[in-house]
Amino acid sequence: EEAKSQVEGMEDAYSNEPKRHPSLKPASKTPFNAEPPMEILADSFITPNDLFYVRNHLPVPDIKEDEYELEFEGEPGSKTITLSLSDLKKLPKTTVTAVLQCAGNRRGELIEIKPVRGLVWNAGAIGNARWTGVRLTDFLKSVGVDPAKVKATQIQFDGYDTDPTGKTYGASVPADKALDPKSEVILAYEMNDEPLSRDHGFPVRVIVPGVVAARSVKWLNRISFSDEESWSFWQRQDYKGFSPSQEAEGADFSKAMSIQEMPVTSAFTYPKNGSKVRVKNGKISAKGYAWSGGGRPIIRVDISADGGKTWYVANMDKREPKCEGTYSFCWSWTLWSAEIPTPKGVHEAELMVKAIDASYNSQPDTTANIWNFRGVLSNAYHR
Amino acid sequence: EEAKSQVEGMEDAYSNEPKRHPSLKPASKTPFNAEPPMEILADSFITPNDLFYVRNHLPVPDIKEDEYELEFEGEPGSKTITLSLSDLKKLPKTTVTAVLQCAGNRRGELIEIKPVRGLVWNAGAIGNARWTGVRLTDFLKSVGVDPAKVKATQIQFDGYDTDPTGKTYGASVPADKALDPKSEVILAYEMNDEPLSRDHGFPVRVIVPGVVAARSVKWLNRISFSDEESWSFWQRQDYKGFSPSQEAEGADFSKAMSIQEMPVTSAFTYPKNGSKVRVKNGKISAKGYAWSGGGRPIIRVDISADGGKTWYVANMDKREPKCEGTYSFCWSWTLWSAEIPTPKGVHEAELMVKAIDASYNSQPDTTANIWNFRGVLSNAYHR
Ligand SMILES: [Mo]
Ligand SMILES: [Mo]
Repeated sequence: EEAKSQVEGMEDAYSNEPKRHPSLKPASKTPFNAEPPMEILADSFITPNDLFYVRNHLPVPDIKEDEYELEFEGEPGSKTITLSLSDLKKLPKTTVTAVLQCAGNRRGELIEIKPVRGLVWNAGAIGNARWTGVRLTDFLKSVGVDPAKVKATQIQFDGYDTDPTGKTYGASVPADKALDPKSEVILAYEMNDEPLSRDHGFPVRVIVPGVVAARSVKWLNRISFSDEESWSFWQRQDYKGFSPSQEAEGADFSKAMSIQEMPVTSAFTYPKNGSKVRVKNGKISAKGYAWSGGGRPIIRVDISADGGKTWYVANMDKREPKCEGTYSFCWSWTLWSAEIPTPKGVHEAELMVKAIDASYNSQPDTTANIWNFRGVLSNAYHR
Repeated sequence: EEAKSQVEGMEDAYSNEPKRHPSLKPASKTPFNAEPPMEILADSFITPNDLFYVRNHLPVPDIKEDEYELEFEGEPGSKTITLSLSDLKKLPKTTVTAVLQCAGNRRGELIEIKPVRGLVWNAGAIGNARWTGVRLTDFLKSVGVDPAKVKATQIQFDGYDTDPTGKTYGASVPADKALDPKSEVILAYEMNDEPLSRDHGFPVRVIVPGVVAARSVKWLNRISFSDEESWSFWQRQDYKGFSPSQEAEGADFSKAMSIQEMPVTSAFTYPKNGSKVRVKNGKISAKGYAWSGGGRPIIRVDISADGGKTWYVANMDKREPKCEGTYSFCWSWTLWSAEIPTPKGVHEAELMVKAIDASYNSQPDTTANIWNFRGVLSNAYHR
């Protein structure tokens, strides 16, 4: 996630970037990283394509549809197979509605505690979209691989995007996760019923529902099996969590787990975070989103206007019917709202929100206790 | 979990209870509920049978091995099949090491905030054992049911234990979970390589790894498929979580989710919780357990001796090799220890511990914010 280190000597590489919506607020311009205004996030269950946060690690590849190649190498040592986009589009088509969330979403709150490396994100580095393409398991069957019989423990993905040394963005996901049809990992070529835009991975990206967005590799160029995690910088030296007392100096990345499933989170889209709100007619209005990794549905959203003395249960306004169950396979978010009754005489209040997921995990109370020098996994109560 | 309501008019029903180890500390005697002394819990990775916490809801059935019957009714309307214990023992035998934890474990800490209904448990209503028996999926295949083709959404279990009106203890688990071979749900007849004791469900109990122990029905008498959760009191009117501001009066159980997967937790087995500890040679010694539901491995245990200003990473002393992975299928606990360095001049400290699981969920900071009138899911930092 450290933008600067990726761009030295690449000034020209950013001469062919796509146009972006003027409402996207850049956290960095080269590579381009931007989030929408918070207030639009809870306006619709599906985040519009042009307002969906963009998180690029490198210059945006400019891939012509008919030149696109997807390479596949199965168990180590097997022959590489190459497919075109039209080959992919001949395979069974499926759609999954899923959240993508940056590991660094809400990093701004960590920075208030103590500086961290990385882009300054507010709570908008998250979005919910309909992704259409080919299920990874269907793709594998089409090339003669039985997903149930794969011996490799990691599925690696590489993008077309390259750094100045020619290294590509890469990531990997445990095979148990990626090869289970219920995980609904897909090779997506449409986002909200339109072809992927360049910023979102045209023509093909991986979608790994329930998992940090960094593993949903854009501009997908290669799928391979391995017994090791991807050796990419972003898998090995980034996107990992550490104890609050671990400083960057001396951190042993090899001993920390790469982020996969993300923890439960929630945030206000209204009122603006950090603001004191006015009480109207004895009530405070609030709305926002809640989501958890691993497909775990949100079962409750609690809001307090008095520092935790009392908690008010929010209405779950928008969520998929399948997210009302008690187990997993819920990849999309829950949009909620609340009208919080306030005692007489109270004219101003500070709100906080926490969500609870179907494993009854809930959010940490305080940001300080989950601070980490990489500035990831910022999921304390939103205030 | 309300002991009293189950026992009215059942005084005689408790005349044939098994003998128990004198070290088990009863939280109630009829039904019998007891936990071992905390300090023994982290002594061994496998909790000894006679010191494993006991959580009975009703009198202990006295079942003769050759009279035991397991009834099975598949999709609604299908014929009931009856199996004997020797029928079961002819099926493929498998072993899974798994934690069982009571929903009310650590309820004592909630009671310190505000009274709750239910048994007063310290942090010992948890244990880790080797369970041997028949995988549910193997059992189903043996009676002609393909687990992959089951249409029902819930698998219901009923015990031989009955209340005064003749109703049995019952529970259910979502079919997605119970019918996935990777979930390793088993019909267990051995605990740590010995036949189950009466207190632990002789001759057969269900083990649903990663899920609240209340669903691992003891003295298993019946398995049935349904599109509804079990109608038992314990599924519908108990073992559910609520918002901290919800009082018992007026609580709508139909709108709360029955607990299945449990949230991440950790606890000190030494020093005793709530105690101030002496510093020796500039260090404080501590040890304990950590565990998370849904098979999520523990990836880190953080301890603070200064109220969260600094955090020390504990050593993970004992865990299964498969729990070192990044995904699920880790059902057993992690035993940890730490020698926490303390600044000069500090002679006494209060410790707190939090664990982080493979979804990077961690524990809530404070008990007050997760208080609930049923006194379940008490997983805040242990102090
Ligand atoms: Mo990210
Ligand atoms: Mo329990």
